[in-house]
Amino acid sequence: MERIGIVDLGSNTARLVVFSFEPGKWFVLDTEIRERVRLGQGLGEDGELTPDAIDRAVAALDLFSDFAAASGLENLEVIATSAVRDASNRSEMLARIGSLGFAVDSVSGEEEAQLGVVAVANGFDLKDAWVIDLGGGSAQVSRMSQRRYRRGGAFPLGALRLTDTYLASDPPKPKEVKALEKRVRAELAETLDQLAGDPVPVVAMGGTIRNLARAAQRLRGYPLDVMHGYFLRREDLETVTEELLGRTARKRGALSGISGDRADIILAGALVFRVILRAADRDGVWISGNGVREGAFYTHFLPEPHTLADVRRFSVENLAHQYMQPAEHLERVRRLARRLFEELESLHELGRREAGLLDAAATLHDIGMTVGYHLHHKHGSYLVLAARLNGYDHREQALLSLLVRFHRKGQPKLGPLADVACEGDEQLLATLTFCLRMAEMLERSRAGRVEDVRAKIGVEEVRLDVVAAEEPVVELWEASKQAPLFERAFGRRLEVRWVEAAR
Amino acid sequence: MERIGIVDLGSNTARLVVFSFEPGKWFVLDTEIRERVRLGQGLGEDGELTPDAIDRAVAALDLFSDFAAASGLENLEVIATSAVRDASNRSEMLARIGSLGFAVDSVSGEEEAQLGVVAVANGFDLKDAWVIDLGGGSAQVSRMSQRRYRRGGAFPLGALRLTDTYLASDPPKPKEVKALEKRVRAELAETLDQLAGDPVPVVAMGGTIRNLARAAQRLRGYPLDVMHGYFLRREDLETVTEELLGRTARKRGALSGISGDRADIILAGALVFRVILRAADRDGVWISGNGVREGAFYTHFLPEPHTLADVRRFSVENLAHQYMQPAEHLERVRRLARRLFEELESLHELGRREAGLLDAAATLHDIGMTVGYHLHHKHGSYLVLAARLNGYDHREQALLSLLVRFHRKGQPKLGPLADVACEGDEQLLATLTFCLRMAEMLERSRAGRVEDVRAKIGVEEVRLDVVAAEEPVVELWEASKQAPLFERAFGRRLEVRWVEAAR
Repeated sequence: MERIGIVDLGSNTARLVVFSFEPGKWFVLDTEIRERVRLGQGLGEDGELTPDAIDRAVAALDLFSDFAAASGLENLEVIATSAVRDASNRSEMLARIGSLGFAVDSVSGEEEAQLGVVAVANGFDLKDAWVIDLGGGSAQVSRMSQRRYRRGGAFPLGALRLTDTYLASDPPKPKEVKALEKRVRAELAETLDQLAGDPVPVVAMGGTIRNLARAAQRLRGYPLDVMHGYFLRREDLETVTEELLGRTARKRGALSGISGDRADIILAGALVFRVILRAADRDGVWISGNGVREGAFYTHFLPEPHTLADVRRFSVENLAHQYMQPAEHLERVRRLARRLFEELESLHELGRREAGLLDAAATLHDIGMTVGYHLHHKHGSYLVLAARLNGYDHREQALLSLLVRFHRKGQPKLGPLADVACEGDEQLLATLTFCLRMAEMLERSRAGRVEDVRAKIGVEEVRLDVVAAEEPVVELWEASKQAPLFERAFGRRLEVRWVEAAR
Repeated sequence: MERIGIVDLGSNTARLVVFSFEPGKWFVLDTEIRERVRLGQGLGEDGELTPDAIDRAVAALDLFSDFAAASGLENLEVIATSAVRDASNRSEMLARIGSLGFAVDSVSGEEEAQLGVVAVANGFDLKDAWVIDLGGGSAQVSRMSQRRYRRGGAFPLGALRLTDTYLASDPPKPKEVKALEKRVRAELAETLDQLAGDPVPVVAMGGTIRNLARAAQRLRGYPLDVMHGYFLRREDLETVTEELLGRTARKRGALSGISGDRADIILAGALVFRVILRAADRDGVWISGNGVREGAFYTHFLPEPHTLADVRRFSVENLAHQYMQPAEHLERVRRLARRLFEELESLHELGRREAGLLDAAATLHDIGMTVGYHLHHKHGSYLVLAARLNGYDHREQALLSLLVRFHRKGQPKLGPLADVACEGDEQLLATLTFCLRMAEMLERSRAGRVEDVRAKIGVEEVRLDVVAAEEPVVELWEASKQAPLFERAFGRRLEVRWVEAAR
């Protein structure tokens, strides 16, 4: 097991994240220390970091260094972004940091943009996207093609910087807002044209957009407490921005979802995104919980080009790894569920994507056992919703959570998660729940007695042949009890019987 | 690690529970298989098990035996209670079971009552109590003194038996209800007198009372989804009983909390408890999630007299064991929290019981890390409420959950759990949260750098001396941030400073 600490010294915030990992296999976030440094504050257009700002940043780094030393963390990387890179007294700043014993990497705008793309390539099931990383000092805008960085760059449009330059009044005056928006349009003129003519999804990252998205979730009464993979609709961003426009900084901080120490600069960030979404004519943006820090982590976790072969598969396996349930049982449930799905294909006519969901649910179905046997289906369902499931959108994460919820008992229904579901998902849930639960019941003794299943599909009845060397009494008994579940899912009766396996 | 399976062959239900454990150290429930057998059905007063009933029981046991064989469970114990013990064709039944290869223990009424007391002695922080175990065939009523069984016995007042004998109509007629109640009063005449004159708490167990309590929780909108340790008020039992009285069996099953396969016999059980609580003049009963099966398990887990030395301590440690967080860190947080509690004693004037809660919260504070670093305080809080915390009542379990919730951040408040709290708990929560969070922050690097704390208590300000060999930079920085939390809890300012430890 290895450990690495990554410090992201941003214009607004300095943050240390520490990961434990086995290269290419699994990772887990150990801890995070965050300190608001406002390194970019008072930078103005002349670009000199103020002595106070430098002191704040150095104090934060000193803290991280102390933490690293005390906790035996040897591998520590500092990424200094916009505020340092754009500062006229940058060498002074780097020398101060260097004297603390850090190896500092002052990344260029393009390198920063690349790290954002790595974060998205490993965080979403997308091949192509525009990636926007809005920080305190700068905004990186990049185009990802085939999961690789193609082009991009940094623009001096960070929320802190724009607030300093344009929004002097509290609340800001309309003409201040207009000037800010004009500047954004001017800086991004060419990029916005490209975006408008290139309708792939837009993914956004950074504390500012996460705060805006959380405010939108709260206003909507969104049923999930999950940020990564959320689709923030443009209309919701517009609503939140309108809410913020009329408020003083202090009252912006009182809006649910907006954190107090960002309240003064959040509006500038909202305006940047509003300009972009309007000009690019998008319905909304996908929110990435992964940012530059995670991008940098992946450069250590994976060899070039630092992208997971299969984001969805990895995230499910990484999650399952965290809860360590017996691998053979999971493997057998997965296999039997898949076989049931195949055997019943003519009834449900679902495809690869759904088969993949069933697979993931089978891998995760028992994670709630970590909490306790009783209600482990409910606990597992909670744990799925508590996880960062890279590569899955919220509808899918909700379906996975529901499949875990109903893998043992209960009548499958969407409940409050219907808000994030699509038409037909109730039926999809019924179908996949049957496959998963039947597989689980055919592995009730966890002894691998059932070798295979075969379905004979009749007009009114389906016969399920359970292939095993010896009669699997418990499994047949539990399986027979699932006839009502089958009938509700497929509208036919179910008969289950044992067929002796060929020797 | 050992494994044991315990089969409880009751009059209504047959159930296999499997535990993994290390004797005296920790245990966890692995699985449970439950089958309604209605062994006592049609038994009538002549006491002969019907051939159908025997077949159902044998089929269930056959199932358990198959499960045990398939899953390599060698250690299997069958406890046959009232239905078998009271049957006139008991030897025939035992022979049938024996032929399946089981070692059957047909327990006497007194032995069954004793197992119930063992379950209560290890499930509650009580020295003395009346214990009522209402099953399908019989009801055991016992007196526990100093955590030992003193006297007790079994009465033919099981819910299935009384339903068979008295409640022929659906819904039952008033005169049927009266006859049933009269019988209960007659059977228990002497016991009810004793109960009335001996006002120690009453603890009830069995599926019937759990169903009734769950129905009461649902009617009340109870904020916790926890049964063990719930105090079912008599007025709520009366309300639920009234609800049930007017309904047919099918409609009783539709009452939220009442499980469908108990709906026909639940009313008889409700009437038994109503008679008892009225006659004994109690405000309510404590619900035990532990029953005869758990009692039997403890006889394997612990040497004579099969009681834990400290129920509360064990349950917290058993829970912490499940989530395995670094022991040194927990130990240090526990020690520092306790020291803070002691140093601030003149300000809070709390006692041993509260110190114990703080201790337990310190042991559990990080269990949410199993779910993930982000929001681990929230996850931990969920996990505490998901646990069976023997020896704690729901108010205390809620406080533990809240202490975990606020151990890193947030403004401590009772929120929806105020429903189970007492007056003064908001202040208690504020005080204990401060001690726990400050201890956690003084262990921020998890390196054990802080050796001790001392408080100098002034009229307007408290100075906290943090004793460490070298300056613990991260710890002091995090600790200083807790001044507002301190001020809200104690109404004084807080100053934190480092004091060099004596060499």
